[in-house]
Amino acid sequence: MSQLLRVQNFNVSSDGFGAGENQSLERPFGHANPGDMFAWCGATASWPMRTEPGGSRGLDDYLTRDYERNIGAEIMGRNKFGPQRGPWLDHSWLGWWGDEPPFRTPVFVLTHHERPSFTLSDTTFHFVDADPAAVLERARDAAQGKDVRLGGGATTIRQFVDAGLVDTMHVAVSPVKLGSGSRLWESPDELRDQFHLDVVPSPSGVTHHLFWRR
Amino acid sequence: MSQLLRVQNFNVSSDGFGAGENQSLERPFGHANPGDMFAWCGATASWPMRTEPGGSRGLDDYLTRDYERNIGAEIMGRNKFGPQRGPWLDHSWLGWWGDEPPFRTPVFVLTHHERPSFTLSDTTFHFVDADPAAVLERARDAAQGKDVRLGGGATTIRQFVDAGLVDTMHVAVSPVKLGSGSRLWESPDELRDQFHLDVVPSPSGVTHHLFWRR
Repeated sequence: MSQLLRVQNFNVSSDGFGAGENQSLERPFGHANPGDMFAWCGATASWPMRTEPGGSRGLDDYLTRDYERNIGAEIMGRNKFGPQRGPWLDHSWLGWWGDEPPFRTPVFVLTHHERPSFTLSDTTFHFVDADPAAVLERARDAAQGKDVRLGGGATTIRQFVDAGLVDTMHVAVSPVKLGSGSRLWESPDELRDQFHLDVVPSPSGVTHHLFWRR
Repeated sequence: MSQLLRVQNFNVSSDGFGAGENQSLERPFGHANPGDMFAWCGATASWPMRTEPGGSRGLDDYLTRDYERNIGAEIMGRNKFGPQRGPWLDHSWLGWWGDEPPFRTPVFVLTHHERPSFTLSDTTFHFVDADPAAVLERARDAAQGKDVRLGGGATTIRQFVDAGLVDTMHVAVSPVKLGSGSRLWESPDELRDQFHLDVVPSPSGVTHHLFWRR
């Protein structure tokens, strides 16, 4: 296992949803409030989107600073990239992240609809229509010996987990209920056949779930 | 705080001792059994002394892999370097670690007894007789912008903590009692005035204590 496929800092509600329903330009997480689910990340010193000094350096910081360690490529689902569905009407949408996306590696976006690659700052987005194993092979090549991060959303992660391709996974479970949306699991216990699992409550209120392949 | 002073993976007993009494060549930790106290490290995939593949990738692995992240120098007490006391009788002792010490940076050994620097593989040992602030300044220069690790033992760590020089500290408390030895604290609570503290029980049986400066 020289190049791991890793899920990092993926957030789900206590009832197992990674995002709510009705994603839109204004609400990337649908009816879920990202502030509720991601507050623990933003409070840490190492959060990649942090713009000011300071921040906590306890347990949660170990998790956020692992986000970019030894990562050479990312794979994400189309709904993480944007709110559009179906064929691209034009190519003006460049992701949610402005001129400096936090990935700083090649990113492979899963979509059935072709689109040319483009580069923003240190991040290049490629659009691929292929099964998980084939996409992972492309991402591993691009990662040049480093690991590959599986960025989400929940449907994409579950697809790779069910194909047996994920090596390690960090999921932070927030103490909020969503009721409906994009589901990662009914319960983390359903993955214990495939993974070892450490369940680690954080003083911030989230419970970190750390999986690694059996 | 661009160059932190960090304690990483320091192990103490449940009654606060980092090592037992009567350190000797055969028993670097005195009457303490290092196997009891360090088993949690050795089980992880990222333990720097690991020679075979495998190992766990849960909570404990986050801690062990942080050991060398962004570290440019180490400071250690003389008793961590060796069992000798008083003036050096000769210079044949090169540390406990064989031909490839795991530090891979300059290391500053605190001692009142001068000795020439020497290099083993990627590690250079310097011997310094100075107060904590002055040693830290030398180590920061040597670290070339990276952080400095404070390696122990307990007396050395406590000296730097009491001088207000430590920025972050990870101490793993093992469920074993030593009764006597080199003491880090009566209780971790005595450091709460100076540090924030996350107390994180691990499934392996140790309890990680994560401190960061207030």
